[in-house]
Amino acid sequence: MSTARIIDGKAIADTIRGEIKEEVAALKAQTGRVPGLATVLVGERPDSKVYVGMKHKACLEAGIHTVDRTMPDTVPQAELLSTVQALNADPAVNGILVQLPLPDHINEEEILNAISLEKDVDGFHPINIGRLCMKGRESLFEPCTPKGCVELLDRCEIPIDGKNVVVLGRSNIVGIPVANLLLHRNATITICHSRTADIAGAVRQADIIVAAIGKPHFVKAEWIKPGATVIDVGINSIPAPERKSGQRLVGDVDTEPAKAVAGAITPVPGGVGPMTIAMLLRNTLDGFKALLLEQAMLRLQLV
Amino acid sequence: MSTARIIDGKAIADTIRGEIKEEVAALKAQTGRVPGLATVLVGERPDSKVYVGMKHKACLEAGIHTVDRTMPDTVPQAELLSTVQALNADPAVNGILVQLPLPDHINEEEILNAISLEKDVDGFHPINIGRLCMKGRESLFEPCTPKGCVELLDRCEIPIDGKNVVVLGRSNIVGIPVANLLLHRNATITICHSRTADIAGAVRQADIIVAAIGKPHFVKAEWIKPGATVIDVGINSIPAPERKSGQRLVGDVDTEPAKAVAGAITPVPGGVGPMTIAMLLRNTLDGFKALLLEQAMLRLQLV
Ligand SMILES: NC(=O)C1=CN([C@@H]2O[C@H](COP(=O)(O)OP(=O)(O)OC[C@H]3O[C@@H](n4cnc5c(N)ncnc54)[C@H](OP(=O)(O)O)[C@@H]3O)[C@@H](O)[C@H]2O)C=CC1
Ligand SMILES: NC(=O)C1=CN([C@@H]2O[C@H](COP(=O)(O)OP(=O)(O)OC[C@H]3O[C@@H](n4cnc5c(N)ncnc54)[C@H](OP(=O)(O)O)[C@@H]3O)[C@@H](O)[C@H]2O)C=CC1
Repeated sequence: MSTARIIDGKAIADTIRGEIKEEVAALKAQTGRVPGLATVLVGERPDSKVYVGMKHKACLEAGIHTVDRTMPDTVPQAELLSTVQALNADPAVNGILVQLPLPDHINEEEILNAISLEKDVDGFHPINIGRLCMKGRESLFEPCTPKGCVELLDRCEIPIDGKNVVVLGRSNIVGIPVANLLLHRNATITICHSRTADIAGAVRQADIIVAAIGKPHFVKAEWIKPGATVIDVGINSIPAPERKSGQRLVGDVDTEPAKAVAGAITPVPGGVGPMTIAMLLRNTLDGFKALLLEQAMLRLQLV
Repeated sequence: MSTARIIDGKAIADTIRGEIKEEVAALKAQTGRVPGLATVLVGERPDSKVYVGMKHKACLEAGIHTVDRTMPDTVPQAELLSTVQALNADPAVNGILVQLPLPDHINEEEILNAISLEKDVDGFHPINIGRLCMKGRESLFEPCTPKGCVELLDRCEIPIDGKNVVVLGRSNIVGIPVANLLLHRNATITICHSRTADIAGAVRQADIIVAAIGKPHFVKAEWIKPGATVIDVGINSIPAPERKSGQRLVGDVDTEPAKAVAGAITPVPGGVGPMTIAMLLRNTLDGFKALLLEQAMLRLQLV
């Protein structure tokens, strides 16, 4: 019954992490230096702690140096700001990741704005977002999850140019940036959200569906055009009495029946999820390489 | 045969300009001051000269003070930059409009970046664009032509929330910002462009069509869903031997036949065109009011 190609995000992410590790080692042999990622974690959210922990572990494995700043969720705006500024000034740090969401009393935009553009490896600085949303401009860093979605399509050689892409969700961290990245790649883009009148009708037109709404099994197999590619960004925990933990993770797509219709589909877990961290490592390495290039050019007095 | 309501952009723009004129007069009576718009025109492009001239005339009529900076198309980047910086520092200037396009040797992004956010009445500063493209953020100023399109829909009480909107074109000055403004207003957005496989099919789904591609009579009546609203941004000059000038202006839509199908449609000329200038005056006035408010609060020591 199942015909869809399963896009193994875990395997692809492992390949990319291997490539990054090799490149880091080669640069270290050449220059004696390695890329550095700083994380800023505010408060005690368990999910945020898990994500930051995973990012540190992945850096370690790739040979990337990490700096860990944690602060209580009562931290004043000014103190958080000066933490970011100190990391901007730290030459051993090439990427700064402020884990979102921040507590309500913090002005998130001001904090993201304060991150030096050259170290904005999460791609959430308003100028990087602005460039992402403009024709003919490129952001220095693309947000990691959206970039991971596009990378999956590329590594699977699924064409984007001229295709109808329907994005479900319009958040700042997934829906909107992934739509803009795919527009840059010449897809025809439709963005749906909670006010969309006929989501099923929109999905039926799509050659590629990117689901990022956070609703378990929301996208039904009957909506999917036969042969379409399904990128399932959703990560939702649902009750699973048969498991010891009592729950399991599923995506925004009703995956099992969808496999009989789609041409290719990402599983959850093991699809988009692992790509996010791989892209963060890639952005950090790219920031480091840009710095090395700049320093080399300065030495050669080319600038 | 013709059933569509004709959206009279000229009349609506005149109403808005009248409203602005009254508000300017009232503020002048209260404060002794008026809003100021500075234009920066580089080079000799006849169309750019015409546009800048129209903007000055409209300001004059509304009681808005203008500053006129013109420079040859050989102007060095640094000189253009310092012109913008001087206007940033000029307290009589509330809005700065750098007429695009700029000559090829000029780094446009750097110039637009240099305009103080508070005076960016064209809405093209990367941070204003970034905010426009983010959920839950608002740009200080929205680009004038896109804002004019939305204003036309609002003044005609055509609902946007939950509607299918198809935008043809993805330029930085029309297509992309109008799509983002309408997304903020909860439309379901599809963006088409020259790589779109089936534009007719996309247009058929639309409750509202915004055409901004610059191709005369491109959108055919048969593509339009009966009763849909058509906003025609295109301004194209075509041969018209029957006229003294030898040419006439038409939009991107085949307007005459479309009138038999559409529910409402903007003519060209006299549709979106006049709204662009009205929105520029509105943005300049808004910038002035924001400054007055800030100064009043400073005086009251509220900030
Ligand atoms: N794989 C990974 O690495 C990552 C996975 N995720 C996962 O992706 C999902 C989305 O995350 P995120 O973008 O942060 O979520 P948000 O909650 O910020 O945004 C959800 C979006 O989905 C829309 N939406 C919600 N309900 C519906 C509905 N019934 N029909 C249509 N649209 C709907 C919302 O519309 P509206 O705007 O109208 O409210 C909103 O735009 C989550 O499951 C999250 O866990 C997120 C980040 C990384
Ligand atoms: N009323 C007003 O005040 C204003 C009117 N205008 C008018 O609006 C029109 C668009 O202007 P502007 O956005 O600056 O134009 P641009 O030339 O910058 O952009 C044109 C857009 O249309 C797309 N396009 C071109 N040909 C086709 C086609 N055959 N099928 C589908 N898409 C196509 C292009 O696609 P791609 O990206 O793939 O190349 C591009 O995205 C013009 O007629 C202009 O005069 C503009 C500004 C203000």
